[in-house]
Amino acid sequence: MNSTRDIEALIDAMAKLPGLGPRSARRAVLHLIRKRALLMQPLADLMGQVATTARECLNCGNVGTTDICDICASEKRANGQICVVEDVADLWAMERGHAFKGRYHVLGGTLSALDQVGPEQLRIPRLIDRVETEQVTEVILALNATVDGQTTAHYIADQLEGRVTLTSLAQGVPIGGELDYLDDGTIAAALNARKSI
Amino acid sequence: MNSTRDIEALIDAMAKLPGLGPRSARRAVLHLIRKRALLMQPLADLMGQVATTARECLNCGNVGTTDICDICASEKRANGQICVVEDVADLWAMERGHAFKGRYHVLGGTLSALDQVGPEQLRIPRLIDRVETEQVTEVILALNATVDGQTTAHYIADQLEGRVTLTSLAQGVPIGGELDYLDDGTIAAALNARKSI
Ligand SMILES: [Zn+2]
Ligand SMILES: [Zn+2]
Repeated sequence: MNSTRDIEALIDAMAKLPGLGPRSARRAVLHLIRKRALLMQPLADLMGQVATTARECLNCGNVGTTDICDICASEKRANGQICVVEDVADLWAMERGHAFKGRYHVLGGTLSALDQVGPEQLRIPRLIDRVETEQVTEVILALNATVDGQTTAHYIADQLEGRVTLTSLAQGVPIGGELDYLDDGTIAAALNARKSI
Repeated sequence: MNSTRDIEALIDAMAKLPGLGPRSARRAVLHLIRKRALLMQPLADLMGQVATTARECLNCGNVGTTDICDICASEKRANGQICVVEDVADLWAMERGHAFKGRYHVLGGTLSALDQVGPEQLRIPRLIDRVETEQVTEVILALNATVDGQTTAHYIADQLEGRVTLTSLAQGVPIGGELDYLDDGTIAAALNARKSI
């Protein structure tokens, strides 16, 4: 490759982002170079801006640009519900659903004996604090349906048992989902939770 | 989504890059925010640097950080061969092959009646100039095996006929390529160009 050193370094850095590889990084960088005034400089400025201002909410672990995120700061969201998610991406997915009106707690992963992740690494003590100090009536465990996700959900449920109502998301067929494309566990769960019509 | 405005704007901008979509842009931005000091700020700086310094070579259309690119500036590459490619990405692919020792000419696309792309939009006049002014003995037409690519190759061949040796890349089975995965045209071309062993 004969692009000069900065261009190669930029391609290498982009190629390390999740979801990108060397080929898509090269295409993205060429695209940006072609539109360097219109696209690349604004993107660089925005990225520098976010790198300076982004931080994790001290209360819930959401990302934002203030010590306490917009959701935690909003009195409207103080409805007594906390939805526990593994990751900020899950929080964003919940928000796109426009159905949940409460606050969140982002664990930052799942318990994992293998990777030596214990409750302290996961903001679980902070969750227990919040249940005691905020007026929490319900904790919704919206963890992924993986072994580690469910282990973590059970651990949290044990810790909070008797203090709040504990719920989890319903399992079933996604809207528009074709049975043929669903895994067996989902079909079984949807059957077990069947409703009369 | 409740991330503050800059984070959303960054995700939107990243999602518009070729090869990325909203989902991978969100994952990439979260990854960068998690490593904002170590990854995001250096990437922003590098991108700003490239946005300022990147330019197209006035001679061949390659991208670099000087008016005349490293390849055009290198006397070692003045071996009388010019390899004509559609795009800088194709030039990079050729360079990764480490087989071509000459210079390039990047057209910046293909002739297209539909998109109203004529020879002037494609650095074709500049190619003809170069054949006359640089000591060029061979022009290798390394255009894509698409209809527009081949139309463009024929047009250039017509313009340069009689002035230099004109060649094109051999067509055949890629090394490691499985016949089952190749399109019919490639198999036919490889059969027609078969060699005795
Ligand atoms: Zn928060
Ligand atoms: Zn050049």
